[in-house]
Amino acid sequence: MEKTSQKQIHLAKRPTGMPDNDTFGFKDAPVPEPKDGEVLVRTLYLSVDPYMRGRMQDTESYVEPFPLNEVIHGGVVGEIVQSNSTDFKRGDTIVGMLGWQEYSAVPAKAVRKIDPDTAPITTALGVLGMPGLTAYFGLLHIGQPQEGETVVVSGAAGAVGSIVGQIAKIKGARVVGIAGSDEKLQYLKQIGFDETINYKTDNVGQALKKACPNGVDVYFDNVGGEISDEVYSLLNKFARVPICGAISSYNKAGEDLGPRVQTKLIKSSALMKGFVVGDYSDRFEEGTRALGTWVKNGSLKYEETIVEGFDNIPEAFLGLFKGSNLGKQLVKVADPLYAKA
Amino acid sequence: MEKTSQKQIHLAKRPTGMPDNDTFGFKDAPVPEPKDGEVLVRTLYLSVDPYMRGRMQDTESYVEPFPLNEVIHGGVVGEIVQSNSTDFKRGDTIVGMLGWQEYSAVPAKAVRKIDPDTAPITTALGVLGMPGLTAYFGLLHIGQPQEGETVVVSGAAGAVGSIVGQIAKIKGARVVGIAGSDEKLQYLKQIGFDETINYKTDNVGQALKKACPNGVDVYFDNVGGEISDEVYSLLNKFARVPICGAISSYNKAGEDLGPRVQTKLIKSSALMKGFVVGDYSDRFEEGTRALGTWVKNGSLKYEETIVEGFDNIPEAFLGLFKGSNLGKQLVKVADPLYAKA
Repeated sequence: MEKTSQKQIHLAKRPTGMPDNDTFGFKDAPVPEPKDGEVLVRTLYLSVDPYMRGRMQDTESYVEPFPLNEVIHGGVVGEIVQSNSTDFKRGDTIVGMLGWQEYSAVPAKAVRKIDPDTAPITTALGVLGMPGLTAYFGLLHIGQPQEGETVVVSGAAGAVGSIVGQIAKIKGARVVGIAGSDEKLQYLKQIGFDETINYKTDNVGQALKKACPNGVDVYFDNVGGEISDEVYSLLNKFARVPICGAISSYNKAGEDLGPRVQTKLIKSSALMKGFVVGDYSDRFEEGTRALGTWVKNGSLKYEETIVEGFDNIPEAFLGLFKGSNLGKQLVKVADPLYAKA
Repeated sequence: MEKTSQKQIHLAKRPTGMPDNDTFGFKDAPVPEPKDGEVLVRTLYLSVDPYMRGRMQDTESYVEPFPLNEVIHGGVVGEIVQSNSTDFKRGDTIVGMLGWQEYSAVPAKAVRKIDPDTAPITTALGVLGMPGLTAYFGLLHIGQPQEGETVVVSGAAGAVGSIVGQIAKIKGARVVGIAGSDEKLQYLKQIGFDETINYKTDNVGQALKKACPNGVDVYFDNVGGEISDEVYSLLNKFARVPICGAISSYNKAGEDLGPRVQTKLIKSSALMKGFVVGDYSDRFEEGTRALGTWVKNGSLKYEETIVEGFDNIPEAFLGLFKGSNLGKQLVKVADPLYAKA
């Protein structure tokens, strides 16, 4: 055991509106001793995701709120440094929902082994992990894009959006991406998006009309708010709208107000469906296999934005709401001691 | 031929906000001569429906707007008084989308014969017509109520809502109806609704929570607006929301603003789907058969509010937005001369 004390990040204060540094509390804690059947995991990479903002609030949602003054949890890739389970040995690389801390002692069944030879280990938090599966099931199960249809993706340069657009292309659709910087737009073009819109500098309504002369058949909604209001006006008959996220509203202190969608849905006989990736948990294997194949054959590219250092976790998280990330936002906490990187 | 001139109602002015008497223009016109292949229909009953408000506006929708200064069209039950088609003979009762006028000359294929011995002829505009089919397909195809689930219906005492609630009961669900008068609530109880809410006198949010202790699995939305906002807050995981109408917004001059639904849909993985009955036109026969069977065996009851006299059509139409009707709102224009009533 190389260390006996470690850093943790607790939820120090529930944010109202945009979280800030007061939201997070750094603490020192002993490195735990794994019990029988447990493993000790050393955090290598840690995922920060927009949905975590929801858990900082004490309201009913699809996931439990984070308790105050306890360690925040999220996706982690780590290495096993000590194992009291026959399922793992020191040096294994694993992924799991673990704490924002340098070491976690958890039951063996709380983590899943990943093979560093198949793909870089960070992909377990991105293209081959929850963001990839979210894109896969939301687009294919709810959106069901058909060849030649127009698919619009908001938050298009994010971890989920960039994969959604590429899967839509694989399925033969025309893809329009909305993102917030010219650098992101350029990236979207590189990975095959047909049209791109910069919501910070373009008039989104006009740009959408121009980019979607045949209307919108699938709208993969990551952002909600005013951008989505514009897309709803262009929905074609029998359009499908997977509702994956509403990042525009996550930091609103009050209610998220805007045009109601009912009339638009009636006019277009359109379908909207909210979802979380867990709805498809019994099909994760299928999804991971498909994503892996596409990554391997080069038809699915991915991008990661990696911030270095445990202390920079809050900054990386807050950056999500400023659009600082291209693709999956990760924090690199440590280089492996025993595992293959 | 008993008359040579007739009354018609034209769209005199496109309403902004609530339509009023200026919206409608009465005109005298000759009774037309049916051409070869046409029939001359004498209007007996005429349907007024909330969706017609949409056609008075000159905006894109799922149906063409009514042209200005031309006869308004809607559902009509009439009798054939003259036939230049081998498909019909004088005295046949028919249903079709015809003008707000006493006589219509139309191609034989524009109307469908109905059998006055199977059910009262007015049912062709109600429980066995578009409102019945709208309830049937919207609830069963989109809502898919399961035994023991909670189904909430807004506009519950209307032509569609009252049928929705009863079909949900037939399928074994618990049904909560929202309507606007105690008389209507009493009617809903009579036809089997488990719980009722008067949106004009009850606190809808509180009343809903009380009436739906296990949340809402299906919300059949006829009204939109603030009533629906309250229901969305109670959606259970995997809830289904058929969006049939948004009568609360039809007469709004400006945009219909309120809480956006995205976050609520994500939290519940709920599905919302707009629809119009025409989406299911290839299955009308199935629907009509099922509805007819339920009416015959007494498990599906229906109510009609009938205003008498051609001159009272505008009043009947305007009454829809004041909630004057219980069940299907019809106007009786004439007693049949040749047909069986």
